[in-house]
Amino acid sequence: MGDDGCKFSMKRRDLLRMIGVTAGSAAMYQAMSSLGLAAESTFKPPSPLQGAPKGTTVLILGAGIAGMVAAYELRQAGYQVQVLEYNHRPGGRNWSLRGGDRFTELGGFTQHCQFAPGLYLNPGPWRLPHHHRGILSYCKKLGVPLEAFVQVNHNAYVHSAKAFGGKPQRYRAINADYRGHVAELLAKTTQQGKLEGQVTKEDQERLLESLRDWGALDKNLAYARGITSSNRRGFDKDPGGGVSARPLPSQPLGLHDVLGSGLWQALSMGEIYEFQTTLLQPVGGMGRIGEAFGRELQGLIRYDAKVTAIQQDATGVTVGYEDTATPGQTLHARADWCLCTIPLSILGQLPLNVGQPMADAIAAVPYAASVKVGLQFKRRFWEEDEHIYGGITYTDLPISNISYPSTDFHAAGKGVLLGAYMWGLDAYEFTAMTPDQRVRKAVEYGSQIHPQYTREFEHGVTVGWHRSPFTMGCFGVWSEEARARHYDNLCQIDGRIALAGEHASYLPAWQEGAVTSALDAIGRIHQRVVAGASA
Amino acid sequence: MGDDGCKFSMKRRDLLRMIGVTAGSAAMYQAMSSLGLAAESTFKPPSPLQGAPKGTTVLILGAGIAGMVAAYELRQAGYQVQVLEYNHRPGGRNWSLRGGDRFTELGGFTQHCQFAPGLYLNPGPWRLPHHHRGILSYCKKLGVPLEAFVQVNHNAYVHSAKAFGGKPQRYRAINADYRGHVAELLAKTTQQGKLEGQVTKEDQERLLESLRDWGALDKNLAYARGITSSNRRGFDKDPGGGVSARPLPSQPLGLHDVLGSGLWQALSMGEIYEFQTTLLQPVGGMGRIGEAFGRELQGLIRYDAKVTAIQQDATGVTVGYEDTATPGQTLHARADWCLCTIPLSILGQLPLNVGQPMADAIAAVPYAASVKVGLQFKRRFWEEDEHIYGGITYTDLPISNISYPSTDFHAAGKGVLLGAYMWGLDAYEFTAMTPDQRVRKAVEYGSQIHPQYTREFEHGVTVGWHRSPFTMGCFGVWSEEARARHYDNLCQIDGRIALAGEHASYLPAWQEGAVTSALDAIGRIHQRVVAGASA
Repeated sequence: MGDDGCKFSMKRRDLLRMIGVTAGSAAMYQAMSSLGLAAESTFKPPSPLQGAPKGTTVLILGAGIAGMVAAYELRQAGYQVQVLEYNHRPGGRNWSLRGGDRFTELGGFTQHCQFAPGLYLNPGPWRLPHHHRGILSYCKKLGVPLEAFVQVNHNAYVHSAKAFGGKPQRYRAINADYRGHVAELLAKTTQQGKLEGQVTKEDQERLLESLRDWGALDKNLAYARGITSSNRRGFDKDPGGGVSARPLPSQPLGLHDVLGSGLWQALSMGEIYEFQTTLLQPVGGMGRIGEAFGRELQGLIRYDAKVTAIQQDATGVTVGYEDTATPGQTLHARADWCLCTIPLSILGQLPLNVGQPMADAIAAVPYAASVKVGLQFKRRFWEEDEHIYGGITYTDLPISNISYPSTDFHAAGKGVLLGAYMWGLDAYEFTAMTPDQRVRKAVEYGSQIHPQYTREFEHGVTVGWHRSPFTMGCFGVWSEEARARHYDNLCQIDGRIALAGEHASYLPAWQEGAVTSALDAIGRIHQRVVAGASA
Repeated sequence: MGDDGCKFSMKRRDLLRMIGVTAGSAAMYQAMSSLGLAAESTFKPPSPLQGAPKGTTVLILGAGIAGMVAAYELRQAGYQVQVLEYNHRPGGRNWSLRGGDRFTELGGFTQHCQFAPGLYLNPGPWRLPHHHRGILSYCKKLGVPLEAFVQVNHNAYVHSAKAFGGKPQRYRAINADYRGHVAELLAKTTQQGKLEGQVTKEDQERLLESLRDWGALDKNLAYARGITSSNRRGFDKDPGGGVSARPLPSQPLGLHDVLGSGLWQALSMGEIYEFQTTLLQPVGGMGRIGEAFGRELQGLIRYDAKVTAIQQDATGVTVGYEDTATPGQTLHARADWCLCTIPLSILGQLPLNVGQPMADAIAAVPYAASVKVGLQFKRRFWEEDEHIYGGITYTDLPISNISYPSTDFHAAGKGVLLGAYMWGLDAYEFTAMTPDQRVRKAVEYGSQIHPQYTREFEHGVTVGWHRSPFTMGCFGVWSEEARARHYDNLCQIDGRIALAGEHASYLPAWQEGAVTSALDAIGRIHQRVVAGASA
């Protein structure tokens, strides 16, 4: 879950197949475009809501990012706000698992996280694009310090069990070689006069000049063994100081090998808007945002409150809920208005009296499967042995991603890797396993890339999002078709109820979708309130 | 000076012209290759030097990185070490200017740095490639914490005063559009059968599939306005949450405009081995490394010691020096061996009795000009107004680079930008100005990119390396020809004197060159010592 890269990874096809199966969506290509569109936020700093009638009450369901943004802004505008939250903590999918934490998933397995102090897994979102200005503005307001998140690491690996005998390749080499071959092919074609009629003579000259630089071509416009290409892909013997320090260039891979490996599929990841530099993360774990909101809203949030029914009438909304510590007894909360941020996967199962359009919309959005596994090792061998500082290794093994910490470089002692980040069919398979099995499998697969795993592994923790009792899935997957028919109906206020969350946005799975949908929804509720008061 | 990017920036041609003029080097293209080759270090952790005869003394000239690495290792091996350093501080070009610091340059101008606490300019090196394992290993040993340095920022600018009416373009857009057009041209060519005979049918299919993904082409293999291209280059209206949140795609620039702008020249910077991710920097400024070495070597370094003569004989080396606090009086230090790390620009002017080959080598290496300017502003407007978190803006204005801090994102209060990083002809011109004029000029040029400069600027500090009394230049520029004739002669031990520093390496301007050359030199001195002792 999370932000996130599900949508763009090498196994995109699996996800698309899954969507096809689950939602019966239209053309795959359209779905792919739809998934790919999550991008820069339309966020503008909210202008204060003016003129809230005294005593107007709003009940917010869910203390995730959407719910807490709404609570923060509505309280500021003078509303009386109460928030009901299922978990014992604020944040929802904004969450970091640390040593001492516990997590009980559907099915009853309880994990006790034993990470060393300072180490964590973000089961949900883990990256903040610099253009997600809504969520970033709350980080600033709440004093949550940010640091750079390393996405692309030229020294991390791209790996296919089926290519190069299963030997991981450095991202740097595949990246340089693909680009170099593309540049050489186009340069040759240009020189052979094959662009005549398409590109002016003058632009052909400029194109050749640019391709030489951009593709690291030699003076004959070839991408070939030499200092120029090695200065992109790396050397056989790197330059140094003193005597015998002259470098030896390396031999580029052939076009056929690069194309056949399929490893080029990892090359556009860092070019996608959401993964472009500079990506950010909160210092100490993504959960720091939820925690800061929780402190800010102290007294407003009732935790351990499991919503069981939502009933509106002409003057307000009554919500039934249970205290999960003392189940069986239904409590009630009532307010003039209700902002519901409960994921549709759960909301669809609750008694809720809204009109057919919103009800249909709630039912139209399946939830993506996703699994993350965090693995603690005795030492940061990826830095010590392999000189990998942050970034992500991509593999076609089911674990899909291995991500290295972007901070505390060279720290002595233990370290935690994101040992798997999967979705689609593999995620379903892993979700069916016990947490222990998931961790063991992640270690097994990962050791194909890092043989050190076997000796250095200590402890793992994992979240399979379809077993998460508060979301029952990772994020709402909108097909193009569902979006066209249902999205507006989902977002329109129904009586005294409005919905918000990533599912009510064009930024599926991203916290920015939660922020912007919450601001949009409370703005519209406020308009109605003010209009009603003056009527 | 420094690491550094001089060699690869958009104005590379100026540097090459300058080298041509100064050093009378051979073909430009060779020079360019030579400059471009600085890459991964050959560093292996040094095995301890065994069997140093008791009482053997080594005099080290210069407490820069090379000199301090040598002192650290030789002391450990049992040698009696003394270091003479011109400055009042350790580090040499490894240096951060902070509030309260002062710097007097040749010509007599003294600057008093007034930066706010925590802010700094690195006049010299500012980036640590992850593959420069020598310098990184000393960071680890000395406990200097590291963090990510952001090189490429898709949201920073590329700028030409002559393109797009002087309006800065986001890196993201130029990058996506160049790549997209290249992919489309090659895809079309392939579809038209123009690669027949060069590429197999099967590889042509794979090439098309890969270009579609890699270049963000649409289903017709065109790079055109739409969600797919906007998800690389950005949207006209970005997606958001709630109602009316549907995104609007943006219009890519045409091939002709991208090529004509020359802005593509900035696109390969982050692809160069030395600038590939993950780049690192010491927390708190590059100078933290020199400072840590200085603490480690306390008592071994004599500061304010200006070397005036180096004289060897059959049994040792005598060095004359002045205490810069009480000039006019020559002091002497003597040792069995001497490791000299004084830049060749200065060493060439000192009395020194070495053989003709080393003397010729010392004279053969001109020093590059470089100027940096640090500018303090009242607020971090680049983050607040422009959402630029770290990274570098490239311009064809003389300032060449504007670099944004990679840390303390969202910090309230003042911030410091690297407001100019220049070399070649522009650097000579700026070096001829007073520090005040340099700062004013940097503000003037920079305000063409960031109009906020005018209102927000507070204070600047600048180093023109040809006015640095301890280097008289930025780094040693080796032509291919000079390298072939003189490099080995520079590195060979001459009697009882050996040289080390970036100038004695294939990693010109990089600290890694200093580290590896120092380790190489002391290894060879040690061999001679041990051989002599057992003879």
